Amino acid sequence: MDEIDRAAAVRDIEQLKARYFRTMDTKDWAALESLFTPDLVADFRDATPEHQPAMLIRGAKPYLAALAPMLADVVTVHHGHMPEIVVESDAAARGVWAMEDWLWPGETSPLPFRHLHGWGHYEETYRRIDGIWRIASIRLTRLRVELS
Amino acid sequence: MDEIDRAAAVRDIEQLKARYFRTMDTKDWAALESLFTPDLVADFRDATPEHQPAMLIRGAKPYLAALAPMLADVVTVHHGHMPEIVVESDAAARGVWAMEDWLWPGETSPLPFRHLHGWGHYEETYRRIDGIWRIASIRLTRLRVELS
Amino acid sequence: MDEIDRAAAVRDIEQLKARYFRTMDTKDWAALESLFTPDLVADFRDATPEHQPAMLIRGAKPYLAALAPMLADVVTVHHGHMPEIVVESDAAARGVWAMEDWLWPGETSPLPFRHLHGWGHYEETYRRIDGIWRIASIRLTRLRVELS
Repeated sequence: MDEIDRAAAVRDIEQLKARYFRTMDTKDWAALESLFTPDLVADFRDATPEHQPAMLIRGAKPYLAALAPMLADVVTVHHGHMPEIVVESDAAARGVWAMEDWLWPGETSPLPFRHLHGWGHYEETYRRIDGIWRIASIRLTRLRVELS
Repeated sequence: MDEIDRAAAVRDIEQLKARYFRTMDTKDWAALESLFTPDLVADFRDATPEHQPAMLIRGAKPYLAALAPMLADVVTVHHGHMPEIVVESDAAARGVWAMEDWLWPGETSPLPFRHLHGWGHYEETYRRIDGIWRIASIRLTRLRVELS
Repeated sequence: MDEIDRAAAVRDIEQLKARYFRTMDTKDWAALESLFTPDLVADFRDATPEHQPAMLIRGAKPYLAALAPMLADVVTVHHGHMPEIVVESDAAARGVWAMEDWLWPGETSPLPFRHLHGWGHYEETYRRIDGIWRIASIRLTRLRVELS
């Protein structure tokens, strides 16, 4: 890839992640699902202190099927920072993002806390399918999580 | 526009928004005003829970005339994240930014709270006049606001 | 420099700062030191309210020699936002970053507070040596610091 194509790929992937955050926090679940490859590997076992094995999910549809009801009555904010995107080819890339998130479960939420405030990093891979970059895997590691 | 011009426009608009945040939080009001088109539409009716109609202001000068005294005795921090900039032509663009802000009014401030902490999105339009991108409209929507 | 080289320099410097944050918060001290020029000027006198003269340090090795033990038992998160990078030549640049940081000292930490939460700006200069951009000077100014 030449310098222009590489820069365009980085920008496309940064936009992809921007849509990930926006559709997550505005609960646009169909749009969120479209950002993943069908065989997505979503590893959020480290997202909360309990390290539940169930937080490792394979497949974009199963991931959304778990996520959407879990967050139905939760106000969420997820912010991403300081991307380090490495374009490996015209169809494969990987990246690390710093992050901060907040969850405020409502009264009907099954989540076992009143508030979550977390900091950490996303480690992700990306694949370009039919010209469009998608998130192929996402893993969240934590620097700190505060639960109340 | 070709790919290089488009990428340059995105970068210029991201720099414009960076100056918006820095001049706002360092209270450099003349520099802040220069970032807007004269016919700016500033819609902050959703910025606080009261949804005051007065928070919709037309014109860069009237906006600064309202903002500068309101924030004279307030420490503010505004952070923007994850821009989604769409360049529509060589003179028009639009964008969405995730955001977080904090306001700490001082003792002489007329603001009716001791602290504001908010999260949301800016929806903006941009116009290029005499080769320089400016903010033509800005609207803030909220995911959550905490007042104390 | 032409537009493509300039854009590449900005991206390289943004990646440099991303590695600065990641290596700092994951305590990868050798990698962090490699991001600085040997004659680094690190001015953190304004980082905490005490304005200690000792927080101005010259040299990447002395800076790391002071920083690593100070943070050995501290969970830290540093986030950077809204870069304004000015490329002055193919070997010199400067930049401003908005920032937010959190420090949570552990029980064995000598830091004289239980928690620090701060907001401010980094003002930095960069030099390119043997084709690689490095941080040549870094100064942190504050909008607000909360200590508890």
